[in-house]
Amino acid sequence: MIRTDLAVEAREMHGEGISGVVSRTEKRGGAEVTTVEITSPDGAERLGKPMGVYVTVEIEDAESPDGRKAAAESLASELRLMMEGKDASRVLVVGLGNDHITPDSVGVAAAERVFVTRHLRELMPEEFGSAREVSSIAPGVLGLTGIETGETVRGVAEKIKPTLIIAVDALASRSMSRIGSTLQLTDTGISPGSGVGNSRRELSEKTMGVPVIAVGVPMVADAATVADDAISMLIGKMKEEAENSSDEVLKMLNGMEENDRYALIYEALEPKSANMFVTPKDVDAIADRVSEILRNGLNSALHGNKYEIFY
Amino acid sequence: MIRTDLAVEAREMHGEGISGVVSRTEKRGGAEVTTVEITSPDGAERLGKPMGVYVTVEIEDAESPDGRKAAAESLASELRLMMEGKDASRVLVVGLGNDHITPDSVGVAAAERVFVTRHLRELMPEEFGSAREVSSIAPGVLGLTGIETGETVRGVAEKIKPTLIIAVDALASRSMSRIGSTLQLTDTGISPGSGVGNSRRELSEKTMGVPVIAVGVPMVADAATVADDAISMLIGKMKEEAENSSDEVLKMLNGMEENDRYALIYEALEPKSANMFVTPKDVDAIADRVSEILRNGLNSALHGNKYEIFY
Amino acid sequence: MIRTDLAVEAREMHGEGISGVVSRTEKRGGAEVTTVEITSPDGAERLGKPMGVYVTVEIEDAESPDGRKAAAESLASELRLMMEGKDASRVLVVGLGNDHITPDSVGVAAAERVFVTRHLRELMPEEFGSAREVSSIAPGVLGLTGIETGETVRGVAEKIKPTLIIAVDALASRSMSRIGSTLQLTDTGISPGSGVGNSRRELSEKTMGVPVIAVGVPMVADAATVADDAISMLIGKMKEEAENSSDEVLKMLNGMEENDRYALIYEALEPKSANMFVTPKDVDAIADRVSEILRNGLNSALHGNKYEIFY
Amino acid sequence: MIRTDLAVEAREMHGEGISGVVSRTEKRGGAEVTTVEITSPDGAERLGKPMGVYVTVEIEDAESPDGRKAAAESLASELRLMMEGKDASRVLVVGLGNDHITPDSVGVAAAERVFVTRHLRELMPEEFGSAREVSSIAPGVLGLTGIETGETVRGVAEKIKPTLIIAVDALASRSMSRIGSTLQLTDTGISPGSGVGNSRRELSEKTMGVPVIAVGVPMVADAATVADDAISMLIGKMKEEAENSSDEVLKMLNGMEENDRYALIYEALEPKSANMFVTPKDVDAIADRVSEILRNGLNSALHGNKYEIFY
Repeated sequence: MIRTDLAVEAREMHGEGISGVVSRTEKRGGAEVTTVEITSPDGAERLGKPMGVYVTVEIEDAESPDGRKAAAESLASELRLMMEGKDASRVLVVGLGNDHITPDSVGVAAAERVFVTRHLRELMPEEFGSAREVSSIAPGVLGLTGIETGETVRGVAEKIKPTLIIAVDALASRSMSRIGSTLQLTDTGISPGSGVGNSRRELSEKTMGVPVIAVGVPMVADAATVADDAISMLIGKMKEEAENSSDEVLKMLNGMEENDRYALIYEALEPKSANMFVTPKDVDAIADRVSEILRNGLNSALHGNKYEIFY
Repeated sequence: MIRTDLAVEAREMHGEGISGVVSRTEKRGGAEVTTVEITSPDGAERLGKPMGVYVTVEIEDAESPDGRKAAAESLASELRLMMEGKDASRVLVVGLGNDHITPDSVGVAAAERVFVTRHLRELMPEEFGSAREVSSIAPGVLGLTGIETGETVRGVAEKIKPTLIIAVDALASRSMSRIGSTLQLTDTGISPGSGVGNSRRELSEKTMGVPVIAVGVPMVADAATVADDAISMLIGKMKEEAENSSDEVLKMLNGMEENDRYALIYEALEPKSANMFVTPKDVDAIADRVSEILRNGLNSALHGNKYEIFY
Repeated sequence: MIRTDLAVEAREMHGEGISGVVSRTEKRGGAEVTTVEITSPDGAERLGKPMGVYVTVEIEDAESPDGRKAAAESLASELRLMMEGKDASRVLVVGLGNDHITPDSVGVAAAERVFVTRHLRELMPEEFGSAREVSSIAPGVLGLTGIETGETVRGVAEKIKPTLIIAVDALASRSMSRIGSTLQLTDTGISPGSGVGNSRRELSEKTMGVPVIAVGVPMVADAATVADDAISMLIGKMKEEAENSSDEVLKMLNGMEENDRYALIYEALEPKSANMFVTPKDVDAIADRVSEILRNGLNSALHGNKYEIFY
Repeated sequence: MIRTDLAVEAREMHGEGISGVVSRTEKRGGAEVTTVEITSPDGAERLGKPMGVYVTVEIEDAESPDGRKAAAESLASELRLMMEGKDASRVLVVGLGNDHITPDSVGVAAAERVFVTRHLRELMPEEFGSAREVSSIAPGVLGLTGIETGETVRGVAEKIKPTLIIAVDALASRSMSRIGSTLQLTDTGISPGSGVGNSRRELSEKTMGVPVIAVGVPMVADAATVADDAISMLIGKMKEEAENSSDEVLKMLNGMEENDRYALIYEALEPKSANMFVTPKDVDAIADRVSEILRNGLNSALHGNKYEIFY
């Protein structure tokens, strides 16, 4: 019911002390890193996300080249941690999303510029024979292809036999302030669109047969969320004015579970809200910066300093 | 205060019978055409738009080629009406907006594909000597150029001396349902961004010295508007449940002037709402269709069937 | 050795009367249509192309909307002929090439805008339950993905089980004048890049298990070909001046088999010529027109007038 | 007559010791820098370029991030040298070319990402009040706008009064090997297209009233040049075989002035060669790298480390 792709936001909305959800925040390599672990089916249901580990890295400063470099290095370092213990000898990077829509283009833009070596290992064995085997694909979106992302990726994976899949995608956050400023990594894979439980859609170890790490950055917020925030703020303002504790509507609005209120708004906006998104006006600049962080982080995690990365 | 670029929406929000505002709807050439005339300074202030004529054409069916052709012909026909009595021998088409942001790209995409003849008249005088002189420019956006649109256009206009300027732009509407489905033409020109009263920004007869016709299509909605719509619907739902006419907050929310409530929401969302927009998830497909209608409508109005239009 | 993707050019270079190659030109539906049939292994070797049928349609006028419509209808009509007798109930359209390189982008641009129905048949069975099942994919290029096109397409095809594959691609012609002005259809499939005999690369009935129709338009010419043309013209000019029939070099140049001379030039330009292409300066406008013809032709052949095609 | 935009190539074609042309090569800041000075009208006519200073910087390694950074720093350093003694308090960066054609897009891509401050000086005076005033514009190409580049730039310049113009453009080189690997800076400005002597086209101190520095990188080669190279190589090969010094055609071809032979080829290819270009197959990757070098070099020269450059 909660419209956020970020585990850290889902957890915040439920407050502390949910059983089956463990969270900690620490400084790692200069960045603030929050790890949310969903350890029980109950926690998974409460947060609306599969059991697993969700790591959130704050991007301190995406506007300067040095800030982006630091963010890319944090991404690389967290990615390497998440790859530990997994066979990462053959990696398929999947760029999700629609590259004709500015905020949705970052996954494709990053995946297209990952330095791929799979073909080079054969073509130039002396130079690349010992390189990690990396390939990439941008499967496109259902509306333009008629094919579920999971079907395309599984079909390709059965041919090229990766040992690990890394899916890169634009996410939706609850908060506008997280757009372009947070990286999420998870070992649970990804379910493009709203396709929970749709196995043709899901990219996960269960559907792919190999581990799937998902990397994403919020680029849009949900319209109903923005409306809900507006209402919260509006109520706050009105309460100050109308100090009437017996007021019924106010009590109703306040007394509601946050999720219930969101559900009501979501229903009110339906069917429009399902078909719209909210994004910042400078989304073109944000998308450029985010793609750069993603591709450099991926290249660093996958190849280190072993090769001069082509671009 | 009202965040819509459409005069027809501004008028709807004020109800019938505003002095200095005349409106009529009729069928013209198969399309529903609404004309709003703002005839007095008072009407201009009430609607937040300069005095002048605003013509709105409904796009009945943007999804089929025939529907787009019909819409382009309606645009051409209304544009020709608006050009009547004006010297349209030398036309400069100005494509406004940022072509790196999908919904904001339609003005540039249309202007770039208007068939320009200004240079051909000299290079190929036998073929184009008697063509209407058409040129086009895409001045870019302030954040990327550091130059106000009005300064660029005026500088170019002083060199090439057009007798008429047609500015093409993506608009913001109040209603999500108008996105990609309404054409607005006006003889008052345009004020890119929120720059009312900023003469370096404004494209109008006053600032340019020649008539300026603005053509636009709503491609985004204002985030505060969407929130306000959600609240209206929420109140509606709650009223049904809480049949308590003594309820104070409900009375407050209902009793407010719509504009006051909007202002409160806008303030609540500030500063974020100024920096975000709401757009449909299939904005890429909508933008393609809208650009096609705009460019074909412009080409038909400017050149008729005189030349095979190149694309 | 001959660097052209067009069977009609390969045949022209060998003159009339090659055994195993049959060719005829006729008017069909207003367009000039040339059919080259390669009927024997010997003919295949001579022309450097697999046995099969190659249909070439001249685009009379790509610059006017009516001309493009006529070309799209010719394409649709030839495509329907080629689909006859094949099971075309489930069609996968494959857009080949690199959409970041203007002349190489037409296959992807066309495939992305084919009206796909595969997912709609399930989601909206009343409307689309009886539609032909169409899907599309753009597998990308080896240098950016590390995966051979044939591997990607085969992997996807094994998941979605098309009964027919239509591959769309930009071609290289020998003659500059064919760029953007010729459509080639063939039932032999396609071999992206220079990968003859590379089964991971080839898209053909042999490698895919279902018929593969390839549709292409020349968008570039080979640099060595342009040089060779220059030399032919140069010799012509010099002969006029130096009427010396005993001249040895002239005799050598003239006496050479055209292919031998081309081979010499190709070798002279190596390794550069393998890595460069020649394209017209207005390739952006040509690519737009060609994509429009391709997508409209495909949509018409696949869906007829059954659905309003979205764009 | 010589089809190269690089002074260093024009000089090479004429050999050493042309009067009015001085050239020196040295290492500066790790890069090989060649300075060609054309000091007399005679030299200008011989090289087909206006009198002035042409600085060529070799890009040693565009493939690695460090190599691109070094190239950007060399560009910045040479640009600062060329700006010395000029009033660079208000700089207008002009991005030339057509951004829909991959090799022609680098000027626009670089100019769009120069950090512009002109509007910020007023909007945020505390932060940017002391910044160098930088603005940018992409005037588009004549075929799409109907307006000569020089007219647009002059019109804008008369409004915003820059003290210095920096024009950035893709160039044509004679040699394929210089594509993407050479930076040229000149204080003579630029003449887009073949418009020598066309004052509406030219961007120079004479036409603009303020100094114009042009920065460019070869992205295409001329088709006739490639043909001519092929012929040279072909003759070389044939000479080895046909050791016949009395051969007339060979003597003719050899005896010709290089320019005369080029002219003959150019004429032979006309009108096609005027309308085509040769470019590498990986031009998309090259264009990305070149844009990055250009924008970082410009930003460093214009702003130093004073501001965190946004992207």
